Amino acid sequence: MRTKTPLQAEKMLEAAAALFGTQRFHEVRMEDIANEAEVGKGTLYRYFSDKEDLYVALLARASQQLLARLEEEMAPAVGARDRLEAFVRATVAFFDEQPHLFDLIQRAEVLRSAGQDFPWQQTRDEVIRRVRALFDEGKAQGDFSIRDPETAVLMLLGGLRSVIRFGKHPRPRNLAQRVVLGFLEGADSASVVSSV
Amino acid sequence: MRTKTPLQAEKMLEAAAALFGTQRFHEVRMEDIANEAEVGKGTLYRYFSDKEDLYVALLARASQQLLARLEEEMAPAVGARDRLEAFVRATVAFFDEQPHLFDLIQRAEVLRSAGQDFPWQQTRDEVIRRVRALFDEGKAQGDFSIRDPETAVLMLLGGLRSVIRFGKHPRPRNLAQRVVLGFLEGADSASVVSSV
Repeated sequence: MRTKTPLQAEKMLEAAAALFGTQRFHEVRMEDIANEAEVGKGTLYRYFSDKEDLYVALLARASQQLLARLEEEMAPAVGARDRLEAFVRATVAFFDEQPHLFDLIQRAEVLRSAGQDFPWQQTRDEVIRRVRALFDEGKAQGDFSIRDPETAVLMLLGGLRSVIRFGKHPRPRNLAQRVVLGFLEGADSASVVSSV
Repeated sequence: MRTKTPLQAEKMLEAAAALFGTQRFHEVRMEDIANEAEVGKGTLYRYFSDKEDLYVALLARASQQLLARLEEEMAPAVGARDRLEAFVRATVAFFDEQPHLFDLIQRAEVLRSAGQDFPWQQTRDEVIRRVRALFDEGKAQGDFSIRDPETAVLMLLGGLRSVIRFGKHPRPRNLAQRVVLGFLEGADSASVVSSV
């Protein structure tokens, strides 16, 4: 009995990501993925029972990567505001490096069966949790005081999604700083008390 | 030859909206839509050549409704800030009244063919245009001065999308005011100069 190895699984997921990224889901065949990964079709099926299974594994992998990336880039930042900027910077970079991830997530959300769990929802919840923890940190440290955290976290994350999805390339210089400035101090320059 | 009437088209679109809203797209048959609209299948096909055609017509209708609604609710508001609040209030109300519209839009976006026009994109562009006109208005009237309009409009619209999609029900009191306050003056209460 041949064993499964993480390295081989990774190779197949990379291949699947590349194909799902450039073709419509129903156009991609398991055979194409096996070819792209340079493994036999039998091998591919030992790891993933079907295309949906592969798709869910792909999203799970992206989720782990995103959360690890956030931790890594936020760790060295000092102070809640810098950590918030690091969060924004890391999120933009992560999605920019994987331009098809949004489509993968949206597709999974659209095509889930009614009542079925949507695989990215846990990631979304975890990111919300982390940003709210940052809000608490900012308050505890006297860095900033978010007046309406429940609305604010949605405005920040939803706004960030639109900036990533529809904002121009190349990204403006200091995009993360600008996003955080607008978020904390307002889009209206007249409302700013202190300059940064 | 029987003529087509807007009223009858409307009846079929209503029926289709109801069915697409509660079932997955591929589960809905043209026959179900005809039944729901209480018209013959032949009549339905005289108006819409297939399900995709109906779907596009549905999104076009929603787009017209949204833009008309925005105009209607923003017209009586005086001053750019009030008009911005009216914009937020109308948008939240519109999507809350049609809880499945987001799914319809997302589905259309996910399943469009590569390079094909996505039917909601024009609406998105038009809403962006109107909000940016409001920013200009705010500046001209000395109401507010948006420092980075290109990023700000994305942060506002994306944030609003998340608030509508993931925010709690019943909606908080004065949600529109709170969204506009956070947007213009910042989420950080310490950054506010003037209270409203």
